[in-house]
Amino acid sequence: MTVTDVGEFGLIDRVTARLAQGQSCLLGPGDDGAVVAAPDRRVVASTDVLVEGRHFRRDWSSARDVGHRAAAANLADIAAMGATPTALLVALCMPAELDPAWAEELADGLGAEAALVGASVVGGDMSGSPTLTVAVTALGNLAGRAPVVRSGARPGDVVALAGRTGWSAAGYTVLSRGFRTPRLLVEAFRRPEVPYAAGPAAAAAGATAMIDVSDGLLADLGHVATASGVAIDLSRDAFEVPRQMRDAAQALGVDPYTWILAGGEDHALAATFPGDAALPEGWRPVGRVAAGAGVTVDGAAYSGPRGWDHFRRTAE
Amino acid sequence: MTVTDVGEFGLIDRVTARLAQGQSCLLGPGDDGAVVAAPDRRVVASTDVLVEGRHFRRDWSSARDVGHRAAAANLADIAAMGATPTALLVALCMPAELDPAWAEELADGLGAEAALVGASVVGGDMSGSPTLTVAVTALGNLAGRAPVVRSGARPGDVVALAGRTGWSAAGYTVLSRGFRTPRLLVEAFRRPEVPYAAGPAAAAAGATAMIDVSDGLLADLGHVATASGVAIDLSRDAFEVPRQMRDAAQALGVDPYTWILAGGEDHALAATFPGDAALPEGWRPVGRVAAGAGVTVDGAAYSGPRGWDHFRRTAE
Repeated sequence: MTVTDVGEFGLIDRVTARLAQGQSCLLGPGDDGAVVAAPDRRVVASTDVLVEGRHFRRDWSSARDVGHRAAAANLADIAAMGATPTALLVALCMPAELDPAWAEELADGLGAEAALVGASVVGGDMSGSPTLTVAVTALGNLAGRAPVVRSGARPGDVVALAGRTGWSAAGYTVLSRGFRTPRLLVEAFRRPEVPYAAGPAAAAAGATAMIDVSDGLLADLGHVATASGVAIDLSRDAFEVPRQMRDAAQALGVDPYTWILAGGEDHALAATFPGDAALPEGWRPVGRVAAGAGVTVDGAAYSGPRGWDHFRRTAE
Repeated sequence: MTVTDVGEFGLIDRVTARLAQGQSCLLGPGDDGAVVAAPDRRVVASTDVLVEGRHFRRDWSSARDVGHRAAAANLADIAAMGATPTALLVALCMPAELDPAWAEELADGLGAEAALVGASVVGGDMSGSPTLTVAVTALGNLAGRAPVVRSGARPGDVVALAGRTGWSAAGYTVLSRGFRTPRLLVEAFRRPEVPYAAGPAAAAAGATAMIDVSDGLLADLGHVATASGVAIDLSRDAFEVPRQMRDAAQALGVDPYTWILAGGEDHALAATFPGDAALPEGWRPVGRVAAGAGVTVDGAAYSGPRGWDHFRRTAE
């Protein structure tokens, strides 16, 4: 059976039947628009798109994995503003020959990841397309706090990290060399573990700037440094190389710090805090903000690759 | 020059530089998320995707046209809930060889259409893709009113229409037969004229159900009839065939009522009102709601095509 056999409206019915609604959903799928609660009279909104062959491969990730990953990429953006995610909207473009079960399992993954933070899939659109594409918009609630933007880092601030980096990139390298193990790394690529609660916690603790690490720590902290007009220096010692990663790096002939410092898509959160602030739970110091420009590691320029550019990257 | 030459971040800078921000935008592009005003503690949200070769062709529509159309499809969904649009988010997937000017002109079209209702493009994402794809999410403000859903039509209600139907389908037929005129029809396909203000006006006047006519009047009123558990009968006499449409229909050998009753994408608004309600400005009666099921024309089943299904339709 293909999505063409089922048709647009048939598939919408099948998918929406699988979606449970969260508390913030005031009106769910099935109308021209959804209605979502925005308790403090503002809504945070972010969009991220995943394209087959570029962000995922169907032989590397199940539909459910892709759903988790697409949701995580968007929910992490909301968390990185200091907000709690409330809802997702999903535009799904599918080749005519796709099995409708793929779309249903994608919805299961999207819904399950959203449920981790009490959010839900409240609406979307479907279309045929030669290229399997999942575009997700996430909405979120700042609960009365100011959004934590990229431009607020000040000299003297501490740079801190919540969550892990390098795992998804390591899993990607493993898969791209034709291996399916170590399983922990491959699973990290398939389903990132995002420290969602660390975003609002950082906002409440007075974070001066925050970003979701999706393009790689050096690249994303580069965005913070540029937006804030400051320099950021990371301490390499702050990053322990986990055993599984060290072993895989050795076997594959890769410097594991390339994964840790330049690998994206784990969706860790990076933030800056005033130098005298107590870091909230889940955050650890990894560097300092100084006057100047650019991102360095132990005071020196980093010579490896710095991050992904989605026009140039291919998932091969 | 191609989007690959410019790179993801270069193109994002070029595009965001062209985007003026509306009053509802509290924080615009450039961070992990945008922040949009939601004055009554709720936000209406809707997503629609346009895929090249299926919803548009670059030899039929300019990038600016596609921007207008992508924005209109989404803004109309917000209006059809009875809300005023506040913001758009746009995921743009582009072939590597695309001229960056195409993306810039798309943004101009999106921004210009959004500006018609005081909204703006507040965020988005870009990716490479073999298939040019524009996924848009629109947000809107209900201003304290209840959303007007599809399920509220009651026997005895009047069915009313704001805006025009058949023009986009006529323009599509003209283009698909290899012609470029009549210009009025072709322009209607390229840039729909959506009666945005009629949505909130209908809500304020007590509309019992409302829908954006994107798949065709019969198909979309069919959704209202099904959701409401009622029958809808349209009066063919309520639909005058404009001269340009009549002439084109004759020349092309098409029944113009196929365009008017089954053609989508003009994004007219169709609504039901209590039988004794005075219709607000811009609305005209076109039929009645009765007990039963299904949509008829002058009491009889309509034998022509009833609407589009985006898995089956090709833009040829």
